[in-house]
Amino acid sequence: MIRMASGWFYLSCLLLGSLGSMCILFTIYWMQYWRGGFAWNGSIYMFNWHPVLMVAGMVVFYGGASLVYRLPQSWVGPKLPWKLLHAALHLMAFILTVVGLVAVFTFHNHGKIANLYSLHSWLGITAVFLFACQWCLGFAVFLLPWASMWLRSLLKPIHVFFGAAILSLSIASVISGINEKLFFSLKNTTRPYNSLPSEAVFANSTGMLVVAFGLLVLYILLASSWKLRARDLDRQTGMQSHIPGETGPG
Amino acid sequence: MIRMASGWFYLSCLLLGSLGSMCILFTIYWMQYWRGGFAWNGSIYMFNWHPVLMVAGMVVFYGGASLVYRLPQSWVGPKLPWKLLHAALHLMAFILTVVGLVAVFTFHNHGKIANLYSLHSWLGITAVFLFACQWCLGFAVFLLPWASMWLRSLLKPIHVFFGAAILSLSIASVISGINEKLFFSLKNTTRPYNSLPSEAVFANSTGMLVVAFGLLVLYILLASSWKLRARDLDRQTGMQSHIPGETGPG
Repeated sequence: MIRMASGWFYLSCLLLGSLGSMCILFTIYWMQYWRGGFAWNGSIYMFNWHPVLMVAGMVVFYGGASLVYRLPQSWVGPKLPWKLLHAALHLMAFILTVVGLVAVFTFHNHGKIANLYSLHSWLGITAVFLFACQWCLGFAVFLLPWASMWLRSLLKPIHVFFGAAILSLSIASVISGINEKLFFSLKNTTRPYNSLPSEAVFANSTGMLVVAFGLLVLYILLASSWKLRARDLDRQTGMQSHIPGETGPG
Repeated sequence: MIRMASGWFYLSCLLLGSLGSMCILFTIYWMQYWRGGFAWNGSIYMFNWHPVLMVAGMVVFYGGASLVYRLPQSWVGPKLPWKLLHAALHLMAFILTVVGLVAVFTFHNHGKIANLYSLHSWLGITAVFLFACQWCLGFAVFLLPWASMWLRSLLKPIHVFFGAAILSLSIASVISGINEKLFFSLKNTTRPYNSLPSEAVFANSTGMLVVAFGLLVLYILLASSWKLRARDLDRQTGMQSHIPGETGPG
């Protein structure tokens, strides 16, 4: 069964890895080539870490970490190492995210610019807050040993749904963030955003890549046959969902 | 079974209906109270139809239309009337969407403003294009009589996944659109966006309402127990998914 699934799965992993790497590399290139590169001194070059770290943390690392239970190797043997990997990768994603937030808040405070006024920031901070809650609840229920199988089974579909929902909110935040950044950067220039200079085409394409990556993660997470193989294994090992048909990190 | 499910379901319907109505009414109020109201003459007042019709079409009507198969009444009796209702509601959503696009294109063309340059517009037009493809494919496969049960079962999980994916893209488009509109409208005013005037708080809140509505639709569509009751019925009537655990409009 595992061998049959592996071919397509690893092809999807290759596509996912390529798309994810491109999302991060394209964002770095945008900031380096058109926006003057990086620094950690409260200047606009410190802000440039923000898009890179949010795309890396809230989308690429988060997306990759979500798919640990879709690896065929995780379907056999003890589950604890996979749970630890899932939690550790999400913690890395969260740390990148927090550093990304420090970059933008420090830049704003340094330049006396207001924080958290745009819809982009409202949605983004909501996504980060939900991510923190999701990680803590996941750690408490699925990693610490106190929770009963019944409670885990009850919370599992909710954990999977909110995992996917947070990724969707992150993508919406990234899209509105790239859009907002281009309006800011390209106003009062000889080639504004509405004349589609090369920077705008490149950054728009980066946003569309982020969407493609996110949709591929959600497809593998929610709709692919790997999900259902993982569920079948859950049933065999007695870790059955409260609501049949749902699976996740239990 | 139906009676047991109905209580929670109709409570969710009430919440969904209230949230959906609020999304549309808040957008109308924003455009009417702060942006001067509506017209159909190529002016900025014609543009004001765009946010209202996109929120109504691509989010609220689309979301409601997606949930037809979660109604307990659809679990018994012939499926054809429910399929027709699903297709008809989505067609209404699509017509609202197209009129919303006509509003913005006409305004742009009238004012010699470029079309389709921002990431908001790239993502939005992608969502509308995918919606058109999804509707045509759904009509051809699930309503016309030629397709075999095997083909319908094969395409059903893909139809459900893309249905949810298009709603997610629409929400990302709406968020980036509201964000962009506020930066446009509130620049060169005594109270710019970053000072959070009442219009900004109101429109940001409208965006967050759209997100809440979208997440509730996705929860009922993908993760709730109603989905699984619908699937159980599919199994009883022999309309089983190619991939078990998935259900939808077959």
